[in-house]
Amino acid sequence: MARCVLKFGGTSVANVTRLEHVAEIIKQEIDAGNQIAVVVSAMAGNTNELVGYTHSLCSHQATLEHDVVLAAGEQITSGLLALALQRLGLKSRSFLAWQVPIQTDDSPSHARITNIPTIELEKCFKNNIVPVVAGFQGITKENRITTLGRGGSDTTAVALAAALSADRCDIYTDVDGVYTADPRLVAKASKLSSITYEEMFEMAAQGAKVLQARSVELAMKHKVNLRVLSSFIKSKGTYITSERNLVESTVISGIAHNQNEVKITLVDIPNEAANIATIFGKLTENLINVDMIVQSCSLNNKMNLTFTLLRSDLDRALPVLEKIKKELNFSEIIVDNEIVKISVIGIGMKCNMEVASTLFKTLAEHNIHIQLISTSEIKISVIIDQHYTPLAVAALHTAFDLDEKKT
Amino acid sequence: MARCVLKFGGTSVANVTRLEHVAEIIKQEIDAGNQIAVVVSAMAGNTNELVGYTHSLCSHQATLEHDVVLAAGEQITSGLLALALQRLGLKSRSFLAWQVPIQTDDSPSHARITNIPTIELEKCFKNNIVPVVAGFQGITKENRITTLGRGGSDTTAVALAAALSADRCDIYTDVDGVYTADPRLVAKASKLSSITYEEMFEMAAQGAKVLQARSVELAMKHKVNLRVLSSFIKSKGTYITSERNLVESTVISGIAHNQNEVKITLVDIPNEAANIATIFGKLTENLINVDMIVQSCSLNNKMNLTFTLLRSDLDRALPVLEKIKKELNFSEIIVDNEIVKISVIGIGMKCNMEVASTLFKTLAEHNIHIQLISTSEIKISVIIDQHYTPLAVAALHTAFDLDEKKT
Repeated sequence: MARCVLKFGGTSVANVTRLEHVAEIIKQEIDAGNQIAVVVSAMAGNTNELVGYTHSLCSHQATLEHDVVLAAGEQITSGLLALALQRLGLKSRSFLAWQVPIQTDDSPSHARITNIPTIELEKCFKNNIVPVVAGFQGITKENRITTLGRGGSDTTAVALAAALSADRCDIYTDVDGVYTADPRLVAKASKLSSITYEEMFEMAAQGAKVLQARSVELAMKHKVNLRVLSSFIKSKGTYITSERNLVESTVISGIAHNQNEVKITLVDIPNEAANIATIFGKLTENLINVDMIVQSCSLNNKMNLTFTLLRSDLDRALPVLEKIKKELNFSEIIVDNEIVKISVIGIGMKCNMEVASTLFKTLAEHNIHIQLISTSEIKISVIIDQHYTPLAVAALHTAFDLDEKKT
Repeated sequence: MARCVLKFGGTSVANVTRLEHVAEIIKQEIDAGNQIAVVVSAMAGNTNELVGYTHSLCSHQATLEHDVVLAAGEQITSGLLALALQRLGLKSRSFLAWQVPIQTDDSPSHARITNIPTIELEKCFKNNIVPVVAGFQGITKENRITTLGRGGSDTTAVALAAALSADRCDIYTDVDGVYTADPRLVAKASKLSSITYEEMFEMAAQGAKVLQARSVELAMKHKVNLRVLSSFIKSKGTYITSERNLVESTVISGIAHNQNEVKITLVDIPNEAANIATIFGKLTENLINVDMIVQSCSLNNKMNLTFTLLRSDLDRALPVLEKIKKELNFSEIIVDNEIVKISVIGIGMKCNMEVASTLFKTLAEHNIHIQLISTSEIKISVIIDQHYTPLAVAALHTAFDLDEKKT
């Protein structure tokens, strides 16, 4: 008998027919003698609809009331899936965040899970009841509802697997695993049978939509055996573990691309040490995360500062930057919407200096200009013109020997 | 300064524009120096959509998971209205049932409120925060979510007004008050400036959709000053109180009609005392409420039993009745879908014997056959063929001198 957490995302629970199919998958696990806890997202499209309502009332999205509205989506799915399981003759009940409870800090819309007492869920296991937990939501110490950010249900699933000491955590989605690149962009992209936590974290952080980056970080920390697989087709999916399958030990595990960022340049900032701290301090105060940063000197003791941030934060960031502009008296704010971040990721990169040069050479061969560069131990990211996305990803996929070999 | 509970129903909160309008109404009350608690229903159409989902997974609607799904609707509205109020510069927060808490018994889909501790809401009043309470939902002792039945938000509002010792409870809806008959059926229907609890209870119970009957019962019990008015047009609405305005002291206050019932006849039941108890006992066990009942003797020591029940309960009632049929060995179950219940209601009826004869005479004049009759101290209801609904209501409206006088 294994204890498993199964998580089903938006398209897997998009309608009643899909929910019935998901119930069948769960029943197979139960019939195989496993102890199962389920985590669900909102039905596909539902969250966007709710965000639409809140957005028209309040452009600043990070409020507790915004979270109250959004959390309704997962509530609906958890109740419906419990009904679908009951219909198959299983005992099942839904759990909302406050009923578990899933305790978080009190940051609206980006809350972090602080604790999950498991007494109620253990009671379910003891009585052969399948608990269906509403993902994405939590509660604060003051009993207010929070949400965990986009894709937060992945984090709920991993945190629950850690709290329950589960043998595995299966993330069911609409793709059958993790690919070396987005298969919609690169026809020769191939599915990885396994990938390390570190690589998966970078893949997720750099734009691969298959898992929320935070959930991977959490899985790594608690050594949760994670798997990504499809609820639509039968396949073993991709295992995310401490060590990668040796057969696949190429230097690079995949190419990610991310079109969700915009590039901002602040022109002619007086070159004083405190100014950079002021700028990023104000952005942080307003819960705006900055990704890549480059500072460059200009003439007359002035400097330019270029950085990227989430496209969805731009509307909130601009008034903040306009205020700083007046305060620091710099000359201009330039926004570039037409960028993409391409990242080359692989644990093998640590001891292989050729990756960067292959990357630069490949892009140069296609006359693609690099605007920003950022590196970490296991990834290199570059910002380029968005129009080159398919060309750049495919060329790098070939250059790093990732193209699927028909064997 | 008055303390008031304001309740806004489905069409009043149907979209973001309506919610902003509702926020303006609330702001006017606050600006007038009043202490306001708000109760909201789900956005119009939302509950039906959610019922559709649950119904396709489970035809037996009365389960706790069904309630979990449905309660999401009010959660969405409460969060959105709190946002709309914040946008107007007011302090506001949403309250879900578990946060107040609104305690109920544990009957799924038809729960009754058992207690509402007011400590959290009093804290809001103290800090000038407008609480927006999700109507229709409650929680059991075991922290499971329940709902109060269709129109249950009215009951939430009245129960809250009683718990908070509110000076008044205003029910905002899409009509500007209580009418002597459905204005869509009777062009000469007129708005009542006041009506007694007893009359309103019968009006609601007999099919007037303006208020949930249970909410009126509760208001009567706790002497809550109730008012029905429109969020769409400015008007004083209709006051529901202990005593009716003398100026309007006609015998009859209104004519209600209800097409939500079906008539069932059980044919040739063995005439034994225990059998009737068995039949209604089994229906009650299955949470199926029966309304009007007539027993008639047939030949050979057999009897027929005719009764009405809610159209929405028919699918659940039929298998129960089929089982009883085998057990008691009676010959037939006849279902008549094409009926309407017409009710003549008025506190003046208590000491006026002419009402019944006027009713029978009027229907006879139009050759309308009466199938069942039921009376109470302040109402007479008859079941007739559904096709005669507009004719019967209009004729009775005239006969009882309710037609609007242009003065």
